Amino acid sequence: MKASYLTRVREHNPLIHNITNLVSAHFTANGLLAIGASPMMADCAAEVAQLAKVSQALVLNLGTPSPPLVDAMLRAGKAANEAGVPVVLDPIAAGVTQLRIDVIQQLLAEIKMSAIRGNAAEMAHLAGVAWQGKGVDAGSGDANLGEVAQKVAQRCDCVAVLSGEHDFIADASGKVLRLSNGTPLFPKITASGCLLSAVVGAFLAVAEKENALEACLEACATYAVAGEVAAQDLAPTQHGSFMIRLLDTLAAISPECVAEKMVWVEHHD
Amino acid sequence: MKASYLTRVREHNPLIHNITNLVSAHFTANGLLAIGASPMMADCAAEVAQLAKVSQALVLNLGTPSPPLVDAMLRAGKAANEAGVPVVLDPIAAGVTQLRIDVIQQLLAEIKMSAIRGNAAEMAHLAGVAWQGKGVDAGSGDANLGEVAQKVAQRCDCVAVLSGEHDFIADASGKVLRLSNGTPLFPKITASGCLLSAVVGAFLAVAEKENALEACLEACATYAVAGEVAAQDLAPTQHGSFMIRLLDTLAAISPECVAEKMVWVEHHD
Amino acid sequence: MKASYLTRVREHNPLIHNITNLVSAHFTANGLLAIGASPMMADCAAEVAQLAKVSQALVLNLGTPSPPLVDAMLRAGKAANEAGVPVVLDPIAAGVTQLRIDVIQQLLAEIKMSAIRGNAAEMAHLAGVAWQGKGVDAGSGDANLGEVAQKVAQRCDCVAVLSGEHDFIADASGKVLRLSNGTPLFPKITASGCLLSAVVGAFLAVAEKENALEACLEACATYAVAGEVAAQDLAPTQHGSFMIRLLDTLAAISPECVAEKMVWVEHHD
Repeated sequence: MKASYLTRVREHNPLIHNITNLVSAHFTANGLLAIGASPMMADCAAEVAQLAKVSQALVLNLGTPSPPLVDAMLRAGKAANEAGVPVVLDPIAAGVTQLRIDVIQQLLAEIKMSAIRGNAAEMAHLAGVAWQGKGVDAGSGDANLGEVAQKVAQRCDCVAVLSGEHDFIADASGKVLRLSNGTPLFPKITASGCLLSAVVGAFLAVAEKENALEACLEACATYAVAGEVAAQDLAPTQHGSFMIRLLDTLAAISPECVAEKMVWVEHHD
Repeated sequence: MKASYLTRVREHNPLIHNITNLVSAHFTANGLLAIGASPMMADCAAEVAQLAKVSQALVLNLGTPSPPLVDAMLRAGKAANEAGVPVVLDPIAAGVTQLRIDVIQQLLAEIKMSAIRGNAAEMAHLAGVAWQGKGVDAGSGDANLGEVAQKVAQRCDCVAVLSGEHDFIADASGKVLRLSNGTPLFPKITASGCLLSAVVGAFLAVAEKENALEACLEACATYAVAGEVAAQDLAPTQHGSFMIRLLDTLAAISPECVAEKMVWVEHHD
Repeated sequence: MKASYLTRVREHNPLIHNITNLVSAHFTANGLLAIGASPMMADCAAEVAQLAKVSQALVLNLGTPSPPLVDAMLRAGKAANEAGVPVVLDPIAAGVTQLRIDVIQQLLAEIKMSAIRGNAAEMAHLAGVAWQGKGVDAGSGDANLGEVAQKVAQRCDCVAVLSGEHDFIADASGKVLRLSNGTPLFPKITASGCLLSAVVGAFLAVAEKENALEACLEACATYAVAGEVAAQDLAPTQHGSFMIRLLDTLAAISPECVAEKMVWVEHHD
């Protein structure tokens, strides 16, 4: 695979519309700027449809699914669908509360997603597979994660990105890719998953629809390899330093570096 | 005192449910991850009761006391009380506006707090003692701060943590501890008090109810000593660097280091 | 020009009341602390009038103009006007949606601003001049930016601060100043414009009304020179490091350094 979507992101500087939460907004906006995209974090119901239409991707983050935010997500999502703008869903803490179960069901019923990016617990919930999550963390379980990603992709007819120690990226055709880059420092900083979802949005913004799987793989690879490089020479306890170096590295990393360091295979059970 | 609750936090990784504000959410979540806890920053009224019951502590932060947030705090607090989950109150800018006076009165009337953590101005307001605060800052005054903490602890029947140059930690029995660690850089970064309140929550999450005073002392000591260590080799103007190093140090600091460096006495007027 | 307002900010530590958004709140509060001011980020309609009256400046940031926030801005702005407290408007993404067009019109009709700080696209919208913005970014166009600033100042009868590669600072008398400091790293970190608006508020808080233009020039110069100094020895991709060093430098920079390094002229078309 040649890393080409990163170059396109930097050339086209796509406008990424995020409806997100108070924990991740600042970091996600900085991460999108670092990768070369232009972030817009607007969440007022009265304007989101207009914004979604002029954006190159829409990212819906369920961190705090209050009624006004869900209303905004529905309006923005439908407008993006009509305009052919890709929509990414980040189903934070899916399944942890009845509110989240209901909201996700409604969003999936009314909006066609291009990609869903979540951790093992969140994706297991969407796949209807048993798993023990913990708040917003991945938790633990015995499920075959490649299969979980595959089920989500097929149920929701989109690319499913299950991120963690390994990332599993699946599409509705049944194809599953496994990426094995990253660093244990990622889950040590809050909103690292949120930012990955936004980066997936930025890569989909510059990809042809039929190359969505490849674009999502490259998004995950760019992010994971940047994390690996950022973590070099850091102790496992340097959470704060990692957060800053990750932004520096996302801005500095070359497509060649990503292509050289990424470790992936087509995954078969 | 042997520093043992920090070890428990890292072993048990307690889920800390925070209802907080747009200034502190990101930093507080990162600080909780650094100390070894699992943060959840959810504030939708429709789900907070369910979350409070599956969390190991609930932290209520009054930074922006809008009606929806206050509604969420009341629901979460009552659910936590029913489930026996410790509740920490951070009464930001208590007394500065009529809204805050009213909201705090309501929260204290309807929810049993395990601990209240505030600066001198906020705690003086709760104690009914004259003090000149300034916005969210501690301001200045002549009150005996140990007595202020004692009064809050007795009025509210909980542990009172008055943080500042010295921290005064009191319980309803009349006992007051004074901790003399820290760095002048703490008040130079926003939300440093908010994070301390959350850290108090994390330590109470792993302590037996009868050891709440000791757990709060150790929470304050861990935070203050981490600040001291983080500030070493920094100029007093390196606010940004301190913020990052504090996260690094909270993750790295050992119970032995805290025990060795903490300076505290039982406080008598 | 002698840099004297920075010294006053540090001596008087003015309370700056900000009604802002989830992206910029944390960074703006830290930046205000770094410059020597005392930030308060309160946005509940029920208390903002009371807060605006006890603050030394009010900063209204349109990042996410939801109905509750706009209501709070109107109440706070009117109270500040009555109390003679300077009000700064940051018209984020002005003109990008109908909501923003309407909200800005209402704010300008009901509140007397002391200063408006925006990028080229935002100020061109306020001046009624053609320009191609992009989300929250400055975008590109052919307008004479000094003239744009002048028009905004005259239309709104306030100081207009158009920030970018060069900053244009104009007042209603027709006078336009051009400042040529800064670094390309500023637009690479989110909320760098939001923080400048807040810094303008802090400088106006300590200036006599008749010196507003000079105070705004010094605010811009302090911020831009701090950015230059912070960016020294950094690669253009070190976004994260720049964000942290900017905070360090805002706290460390001396009035003498600002006076020595600032490059400005009275601007004539």
